[in-house]
Amino acid sequence: MGHVTFSQAVYLALTGVLPSPEVAKLLDAMLVSSIDHGPTAPSAYAARTSASTGAPLNAAIGAGILSINRFHGAAISDGMMVLLEGIQRAQDEKKTLDEIAVEMIAEYGAQKKRIGGLGHRIHSDDPRTAKLFSLAKELGVAGQGVQMIEALHKHFHAIGKDLPINVDGALAAILVDLEIPPEIGNAFFIMARIPGLVAHIFEEQSRERPMRHIHPTDVTYDGPDPRSV
Amino acid sequence: MGHVTFSQAVYLALTGVLPSPEVAKLLDAMLVSSIDHGPTAPSAYAARTSASTGAPLNAAIGAGILSINRFHGAAISDGMMVLLEGIQRAQDEKKTLDEIAVEMIAEYGAQKKRIGGLGHRIHSDDPRTAKLFSLAKELGVAGQGVQMIEALHKHFHAIGKDLPINVDGALAAILVDLEIPPEIGNAFFIMARIPGLVAHIFEEQSRERPMRHIHPTDVTYDGPDPRSV
Amino acid sequence: MGHVTFSQAVYLALTGVLPSPEVAKLLDAMLVSSIDHGPTAPSAYAARTSASTGAPLNAAIGAGILSINRFHGAAISDGMMVLLEGIQRAQDEKKTLDEIAVEMIAEYGAQKKRIGGLGHRIHSDDPRTAKLFSLAKELGVAGQGVQMIEALHKHFHAIGKDLPINVDGALAAILVDLEIPPEIGNAFFIMARIPGLVAHIFEEQSRERPMRHIHPTDVTYDGPDPRSV
Amino acid sequence: MGHVTFSQAVYLALTGVLPSPEVAKLLDAMLVSSIDHGPTAPSAYAARTSASTGAPLNAAIGAGILSINRFHGAAISDGMMVLLEGIQRAQDEKKTLDEIAVEMIAEYGAQKKRIGGLGHRIHSDDPRTAKLFSLAKELGVAGQGVQMIEALHKHFHAIGKDLPINVDGALAAILVDLEIPPEIGNAFFIMARIPGLVAHIFEEQSRERPMRHIHPTDVTYDGPDPRSV
Repeated sequence: MGHVTFSQAVYLALTGVLPSPEVAKLLDAMLVSSIDHGPTAPSAYAARTSASTGAPLNAAIGAGILSINRFHGAAISDGMMVLLEGIQRAQDEKKTLDEIAVEMIAEYGAQKKRIGGLGHRIHSDDPRTAKLFSLAKELGVAGQGVQMIEALHKHFHAIGKDLPINVDGALAAILVDLEIPPEIGNAFFIMARIPGLVAHIFEEQSRERPMRHIHPTDVTYDGPDPRSV
Repeated sequence: MGHVTFSQAVYLALTGVLPSPEVAKLLDAMLVSSIDHGPTAPSAYAARTSASTGAPLNAAIGAGILSINRFHGAAISDGMMVLLEGIQRAQDEKKTLDEIAVEMIAEYGAQKKRIGGLGHRIHSDDPRTAKLFSLAKELGVAGQGVQMIEALHKHFHAIGKDLPINVDGALAAILVDLEIPPEIGNAFFIMARIPGLVAHIFEEQSRERPMRHIHPTDVTYDGPDPRSV
Repeated sequence: MGHVTFSQAVYLALTGVLPSPEVAKLLDAMLVSSIDHGPTAPSAYAARTSASTGAPLNAAIGAGILSINRFHGAAISDGMMVLLEGIQRAQDEKKTLDEIAVEMIAEYGAQKKRIGGLGHRIHSDDPRTAKLFSLAKELGVAGQGVQMIEALHKHFHAIGKDLPINVDGALAAILVDLEIPPEIGNAFFIMARIPGLVAHIFEEQSRERPMRHIHPTDVTYDGPDPRSV
Repeated sequence: MGHVTFSQAVYLALTGVLPSPEVAKLLDAMLVSSIDHGPTAPSAYAARTSASTGAPLNAAIGAGILSINRFHGAAISDGMMVLLEGIQRAQDEKKTLDEIAVEMIAEYGAQKKRIGGLGHRIHSDDPRTAKLFSLAKELGVAGQGVQMIEALHKHFHAIGKDLPINVDGALAAILVDLEIPPEIGNAFFIMARIPGLVAHIFEEQSRERPMRHIHPTDVTYDGPDPRSV
């Protein structure tokens, strides 16, 4: 207290190890990268709906968190599982990550399964990914997690599929390299979203009339956009 | 099991007493009266939002229930408190319920406080109230709870305020007469809403694409309307 | 309202069809069968913990429902999926349910997967299963769902494994015969548990001091046991 | 991203203002101060109970957050309201904070109401309070919020009541000085608790058998204690 940042304490609570200042800086960037996508996120929306009926703060946050599932924000754990599978196979079968990437793309394709963390509805390239990977490399944290997802990206490209590494994929790769267990990977997205949920709840309860119809494409949120920092 | 209805078992769980067939019939009518208001209820909306992100059934129901607060569905307990206060004062001060109603209307008016259970945004008279009160009287259940809210209604009318007894008020009055503790009055609304929440969640997950924008005034719910039975 | 029971309205909300009095009677028995297992159920425990910190009723119910997952109360949907798979295979492959049961037992065994709805930690036979099946047969509702689970039970017995049909299995079989979609099968357990959760929450908040340690094997619940009716 | 810490981004999301490095350092200390009290906290307990039944991560976190209410962790907002009332009265009535403290202690005493943030069940003095106040003064952040609670503490002492300023009171005072709206004061406690909840959930799901009885005074948590840093 007074000596460690909150991000360091988060890592300590989750792993039992106090992170170096380099890792701490990366954790800050990772949490900041997911902080808010704007008013149309389902979690923001559910939190506002609950708030609008008069919920106390914790219950409205709860409604928001219950809307963070596999189609919104819960892709990090799944992405980590795929990367860890690839790394394990490379080790077991004495192959390179590139060779395994080619095999996995074929296998997932045959089963018509998506690989989490690749592809994005809006951006062709997510600028947050480049930023996080460059920081992870500069700080000496990037390892097989980042290499594995870059191998998948490269070999998808080679077969004509341009699937950018989205921010969930970037977080998944770095969390693998930080040795965070995949089961709790989504916690980073959830933690990053709480401040935004709180801002939405406060705005709803302090400025709007109760029980209004909240249109998802017409929310009045005019607070700051932390991404523009 | 096989001998009691679910409504009877609800009453037994809450009070320790197996209700008579008359009370059971009234409980069924009370639960059915609150079953669903259509797609624009915030609880339905929050449950659909959570469901749309891929939540399991229990979590999506949870998000719905977290949107049942004092501006939506949680007025029953508050209404019961007011009625119990009036009944208690009549007894303590040896006055009639009518006399107490006149006093309370003046006091609440002076403090600019609303009396829960009276007034309605849409209906001038809620047909469910008349139905429930007529059933409660016919079955011999109506007592001081129903008399107290009718006294409040009558004396508001006498000063030119036409505040119909809404369905929350009707439920509050009858629950007072059934000796349900006011702290758990809202449970009846919550229980009544679960089947509707489940229908919304199922429809969202089986018919709609994930993560769509759910507009509160344009929801596709086309299921049955239990009120028309 | 006044003409239908709550159980009938539940079925109507979920299926769009008003059930016959026979089906209504069976639904009542099904809901009553799951109403409460006593104080040591995790859902009761989580609801009490939340209540003990001062949660409003809906939030404490929410905490309880969030503790109804695959190891507690959410086995009904999984059980329904297995039974529907068996029935579909019998139809597609023009085999009897008995033949399919033998095949499925072998397959699930080879994959070391449990079949939901069979086996019980406490009871060797669950008396509720016998009761529900006898009622379902008497009322003419029992069909391929009940036949399929009885075939599985019989053929497990034939290979020396005595796995009683537990109450989740009984509910799964009857819900299949009632044509409830398997995705919402768990809703019946959830709905059945709400009255018990409310009783636990009320007892915690009206009788116990806040923030006490709640020992799961030493809870003071002394309310009625609806199963003894 | 890469330039701001998570604590700074939290403050920016809640207030629209990027905090100075001094305020950022204080925010880190505040969040770290509440990170975890050990396994017997009700929120940890509810999260473990939900996790033990097989809940996904977000739902188990939700159950934990639903157990953060007025008797556990939600005293910060209430404390802020009292301090803001005192500061406002001093300004309106042109009195000193000391004079107002004496009046408020008498008034709250007459109404038998507690003042949030003062008094502690375990510690006679909470070392975290001294640390946070010394940091707030050193960084030039401490203002009327800290002065008001210290005035209350001093004048309670003068009438023979030794009520230490607990960590909720310390956070309330500093949040007043940081101009955080009191309605969202509890968010700091909630955010601080998420990493600990995640650690509990992971430990429960990775090491314990499902559906075990979780005794609140006998939890196996042996992870790191962030307070000892």
